[in-house]
Amino acid sequence: MSYRVAVVGATGAVGREMLKTLAQRNFPVREVAALASGRSVGQPVSFGDKTLAVQSLEKFDFAGWDIGLFSPGASVSAVHAPRAAASGCIVIDNTSHFRMEPDVPLVVPEVNPEALARIKRGIIANPNCSTIQMVVALKPLHDRFRIRRVVVATYQSTSGAGKEAMEELMAQTRASMVHDPIVVEQFTKQIAFNVIPHIDRFMDDGSTKEEWKMVAETRKILDPDIKVIATCARVPVFIGHAEAVHIEFERKVTAAAAREILREAPGVQVVDRREDGGYMTPLESQGEDATFVTRLREDPTVENGLAFWCVADNLRKGAALNAVQIAEVLAAQAKRGEGALAKRAA
Amino acid sequence: MSYRVAVVGATGAVGREMLKTLAQRNFPVREVAALASGRSVGQPVSFGDKTLAVQSLEKFDFAGWDIGLFSPGASVSAVHAPRAAASGCIVIDNTSHFRMEPDVPLVVPEVNPEALARIKRGIIANPNCSTIQMVVALKPLHDRFRIRRVVVATYQSTSGAGKEAMEELMAQTRASMVHDPIVVEQFTKQIAFNVIPHIDRFMDDGSTKEEWKMVAETRKILDPDIKVIATCARVPVFIGHAEAVHIEFERKVTAAAAREILREAPGVQVVDRREDGGYMTPLESQGEDATFVTRLREDPTVENGLAFWCVADNLRKGAALNAVQIAEVLAAQAKRGEGALAKRAA
Repeated sequence: MSYRVAVVGATGAVGREMLKTLAQRNFPVREVAALASGRSVGQPVSFGDKTLAVQSLEKFDFAGWDIGLFSPGASVSAVHAPRAAASGCIVIDNTSHFRMEPDVPLVVPEVNPEALARIKRGIIANPNCSTIQMVVALKPLHDRFRIRRVVVATYQSTSGAGKEAMEELMAQTRASMVHDPIVVEQFTKQIAFNVIPHIDRFMDDGSTKEEWKMVAETRKILDPDIKVIATCARVPVFIGHAEAVHIEFERKVTAAAAREILREAPGVQVVDRREDGGYMTPLESQGEDATFVTRLREDPTVENGLAFWCVADNLRKGAALNAVQIAEVLAAQAKRGEGALAKRAA
Repeated sequence: MSYRVAVVGATGAVGREMLKTLAQRNFPVREVAALASGRSVGQPVSFGDKTLAVQSLEKFDFAGWDIGLFSPGASVSAVHAPRAAASGCIVIDNTSHFRMEPDVPLVVPEVNPEALARIKRGIIANPNCSTIQMVVALKPLHDRFRIRRVVVATYQSTSGAGKEAMEELMAQTRASMVHDPIVVEQFTKQIAFNVIPHIDRFMDDGSTKEEWKMVAETRKILDPDIKVIATCARVPVFIGHAEAVHIEFERKVTAAAAREILREAPGVQVVDRREDGGYMTPLESQGEDATFVTRLREDPTVENGLAFWCVADNLRKGAALNAVQIAEVLAAQAKRGEGALAKRAA
């Protein structure tokens, strides 16, 4: 079995990574379409050793297409994801638009693949990048020790805000080194050589939407009883998000036991030598599939406390890879005659 | 009354800032000596509109000098601070060497100036940069709501590691933009466009010494019963440390009440509009005296929880300014015929 796959938002940072990931992982494609909005139509994008010409999303007919990997803006998905789904195409949407809708599964394949059984509207949501890497690391620990509360502070790269945001970091860095004026457009303040404690819009309670996403999505994916408080900040890094995670468990935990469990956990790689360089940084996560857990230690300031640092490539596990992994689960189910793709074929 | 002040480590990032701060704040100096180790002797350094020639620390006779502002390496202070103190010079030492010794006061003037009454060895310790800005913000809240526990994650600039570290960020940034090889010497990994979750050496419990300092120093300065867990990371910023602080209080707290208290607190400036740009970043703290508190909000995941983001210029409030403020307290006491400087004169 092979599939016709449409990548929507194909010229963006995540869209390009989706095409790359599909090719690298040999996803069984029969045909791939690269779609984007007006301006980018005709532009060439790479898919493995092929070059695809970008087609217009607006005019694209999804009938006969099996899977749509969507990563345009949220407002674009709001219109075109339901349109694609109505044509029978199964949409895996990377925007925030559908994530919290009760009848849309929000899926991290290592954490809650069972949620895929609840596809109703032909749309599956890919979680937020900062949530994905955290829940991949939390899941095996939650199964064993039961998480009560998580306090997390993030160090998020500019690619999480898109290609133009990465270009702004580059341009500001250059300007700053030759003492040219700094142009601020993608962020609210200079990001080069700075840290901005603000991602997405402000909510009424003083948190940002990015912080709220980490709270709400973790509950939807992992367990509605887990309490999460997040502080999300943007750092002058191109690719790779880091998170300082502090957890309180119901049951007794040791760093050694946590390390053993995480060593066996799918999607997790433990890199944790307590010495110079014996930990992972965002730069090193670039191009990697794993969520790296590092700086594991007990937190003596609370009962059953544990702290760690985790990093992942936010364009891969935080976005494109997770979406492709969801498609892989659907394809594996279809091989067994099960799941949404099989139903579609039938 | 005016004083003879020696600045030790005068060519370093903090030493230069000490000279600048003494001049800017019109500290009553009769004479200023700029001291450093062998290599830097003879080098010119600025003091206000004057230029001083650096003198050799090794050969310097502290007899007749009133105040020594020390910011060389910890091993240099270990030798020369007691030597200066033995000559009757009151040492305000910015290194970690004496901080936790029971008979050495560890002082942040806005927080525990009363500790200056306990000078015994002629040495006063200046706390770690990341501790200072946090306790300035915590103190007024602790007085009112009683802190039980603090979970803090830091975003620390390269200047905290010294002038060579800032130069390494600059050199790596340049190299990275022209695809030259990256040279790593001051840090354990590339810091340009990266985040390194490691400051100072590793401790047996898996925390770093920097993290331990935030725990131990906060207890010594503020209250031995406060529990602190810290994750300290280095970010590619030149000057200015940021901290994501999550606090649990004994008493009921609201964001509004905390904001009111912090607005009146010495050394604190509240910048907290819940809108684009309505918060402070490390870059904006550069050259400023205040500790800026921003992103104040209640934390609903714990009883009496509060979260905020704070930033300060780590070379000023985190080091040079705090040291000069200690000297100012001593000078004010001496005017009233009290304290260590007065005793010295008598």
